[in-house]
Amino acid sequence: MKAGDKLPSVTVNEKNPDHNINIAEFFAPYKKAILFGVPGAFTPGCTKTHVPGYLENYDKIKEKGVEKIAVISVNDAFVMQAWRDHYNSGDKITFLADPRAEFVKAADLHFNAGGLGGTRSKRFVAIVENGIVTRIDIEPDNSGLACSLAPAILGHI
Amino acid sequence: MKAGDKLPSVTVNEKNPDHNINIAEFFAPYKKAILFGVPGAFTPGCTKTHVPGYLENYDKIKEKGVEKIAVISVNDAFVMQAWRDHYNSGDKITFLADPRAEFVKAADLHFNAGGLGGTRSKRFVAIVENGIVTRIDIEPDNSGLACSLAPAILGHI
Repeated sequence: MKAGDKLPSVTVNEKNPDHNINIAEFFAPYKKAILFGVPGAFTPGCTKTHVPGYLENYDKIKEKGVEKIAVISVNDAFVMQAWRDHYNSGDKITFLADPRAEFVKAADLHFNAGGLGGTRSKRFVAIVENGIVTRIDIEPDNSGLACSLAPAILGHI
Repeated sequence: MKAGDKLPSVTVNEKNPDHNINIAEFFAPYKKAILFGVPGAFTPGCTKTHVPGYLENYDKIKEKGVEKIAVISVNDAFVMQAWRDHYNSGDKITFLADPRAEFVKAADLHFNAGGLGGTRSKRFVAIVENGIVTRIDIEPDNSGLACSLAPAILGHI
């Protein structure tokens, strides 16, 4: 996925595996949105740094006109919902589940995270305007914590 | 896997993906142990019924000479550890991660749980004596909550 691309039209889940969401349709209404991807729910870097950064900078991000913030991971919807509940932060961030890695494969954002069980999402952040990716930063080592963090993207919104 | 079988010699994880455990070696020292398998961490049936039943019946199970109780699921070690922490029940149950489904495939206990992302463990409970399975009850519909529950297995220990 690169700047200028439309989000792929694939199904992801929210809250439970029966709640299907077409990710392209989900983002289409928002003039400006952020989608970030992580290798795994409950993994240390994603849990202690990546998601908290977006929560801590939530007000600053919203002030820049961002209407929706979502995170996606190759985990099932029950795990993503439990991870959401772990933060007790309501609906500030939408937790999207990509259990069969269909989104990350369609977007060419996947890598083999062997210890986690196989195909996962590279760590990335994308600015999405009405479903079109206008900027994307992908961690060059797949899982590092640098260009995809909230403070880094704040300067680019 | 059936009564009389040795547990397969495959690697699973505990706590994090770098902590490898050979499941056959893990169970070998225990004269009597229980291993139960679930379709998924944080799924409703596994979270609200299956695991709590083994915690509620922990003392009764131990009184019957069971030296170790472990649960296994096709989730990564970070998710299993978060699920363990969710119960705040210390080391009463050991949470084993089978992220690549190697154990459940070797033991022929796998099924396709599409909504969860693919291959998962059937819901089962096995009594294991020094690494040998002496009894196994597998839910006939893969994921039901009947023969594999703690109250059901208590009568067979």
